[in-house]
Amino acid sequence: MWYQTELTLRPRRRGFHLITRDVEQVLEPLSQMHIGLLHIFIQHTSASLTINENADPTVRNDFEQVFNRLVPENAPYYEHTLEGSDDLPAHIKASLLGPALTIPIRDGQLALGTWQGIYLCEHRDHGGSRRLVLTLQGQAL
Amino acid sequence: MWYQTELTLRPRRRGFHLITRDVEQVLEPLSQMHIGLLHIFIQHTSASLTINENADPTVRNDFEQVFNRLVPENAPYYEHTLEGSDDLPAHIKASLLGPALTIPIRDGQLALGTWQGIYLCEHRDHGGSRRLVLTLQGQAL
Amino acid sequence: MWYQTELTLRPRRRGFHLITRDVEQVLEPLSQMHIGLLHIFIQHTSASLTINENADPTVRNDFEQVFNRLVPENAPYYEHTLEGSDDLPAHIKASLLGPALTIPIRDGQLALGTWQGIYLCEHRDHGGSRRLVLTLQGQAL
Repeated sequence: MWYQTELTLRPRRRGFHLITRDVEQVLEPLSQMHIGLLHIFIQHTSASLTINENADPTVRNDFEQVFNRLVPENAPYYEHTLEGSDDLPAHIKASLLGPALTIPIRDGQLALGTWQGIYLCEHRDHGGSRRLVLTLQGQAL
Repeated sequence: MWYQTELTLRPRRRGFHLITRDVEQVLEPLSQMHIGLLHIFIQHTSASLTINENADPTVRNDFEQVFNRLVPENAPYYEHTLEGSDDLPAHIKASLLGPALTIPIRDGQLALGTWQGIYLCEHRDHGGSRRLVLTLQGQAL
Repeated sequence: MWYQTELTLRPRRRGFHLITRDVEQVLEPLSQMHIGLLHIFIQHTSASLTINENADPTVRNDFEQVFNRLVPENAPYYEHTLEGSDDLPAHIKASLLGPALTIPIRDGQLALGTWQGIYLCEHRDHGGSRRLVLTLQGQAL
């Protein structure tokens, strides 16, 4: 059993955003799966996906602060500067976090841990809407 | 052919630990698979998984040293500090390394390179036991 | 429908290299797949894979500069130094970027975004040829 769909996320400000609900809402066949995997892929190179703490919003604020220090803007050695000071750092952050997630499915639900949520990591100041490809596969219940 | 199981890893000290054996031991159907994929998922946000050098333990020590410098404790700008000085850095390290691995299977075995081993990356001082969801899929031999 | 093959990449200099074409060329069954996933796995611990900008080569140059600063050579606390000053940093970079990619397939093609390309991240000065395991699965057209 295979199912694939697209999800266009509305524009979000630069930072880290919980999108677990947005993803689950477009996965109607999920409830019929016994064992499986969900693959989520972002079709962009300056935004990324990760899984992390789903409760305390200060964690997501701290992510933004830490990643801005790990990959600073305006480093004097950057060559790729034409698209703005946030662009090259966005590409690096996107690769550090990665463009895809694979999450196990069990008994009709994502088998996430209690504190795990899916983050959209928006690395641009004005990234616009972001497109995800969701691929579901597995055994029916 | 699908198979899913859980593996609870005993508590390990903060650092990087080889768990290839622990994982293989609970994958009985692996030996019957011709082509496939193993997905390993950690249901936590302060520990993670990676693949790296499986022979020299100094590599794993150096990982701990490098990641502690990449993401220091007690940065003055951290907001999420209630759960201890190791907590927020643990979340960041977990996202840098990632919560999941997918490994190819060929002829009844994980198709790892000669020097590749699976690491549990324990980012907390007292993380306790850690739960993995293992999902195996593929074509039978 | 499952298909697995190996691809040996010719030696590349240290840095970030576009290999989308190399990968697609050995995936003959791709054109017959309606929905699916491609998994790419590198069987090494000092080179890695990522997806990023496929047009402007300065992005790939900047990646090399940024990662060399994130994980410097010859840090005084490194224990694993026997294999050369580029070796331990190569292991760390490989784990930051990861050994594997999973990419959705739709209507006989990789469902990459317009600007996305597959990078080989060669972290050693003389890494030699690199071996990939490619696993394709999905529903036929």
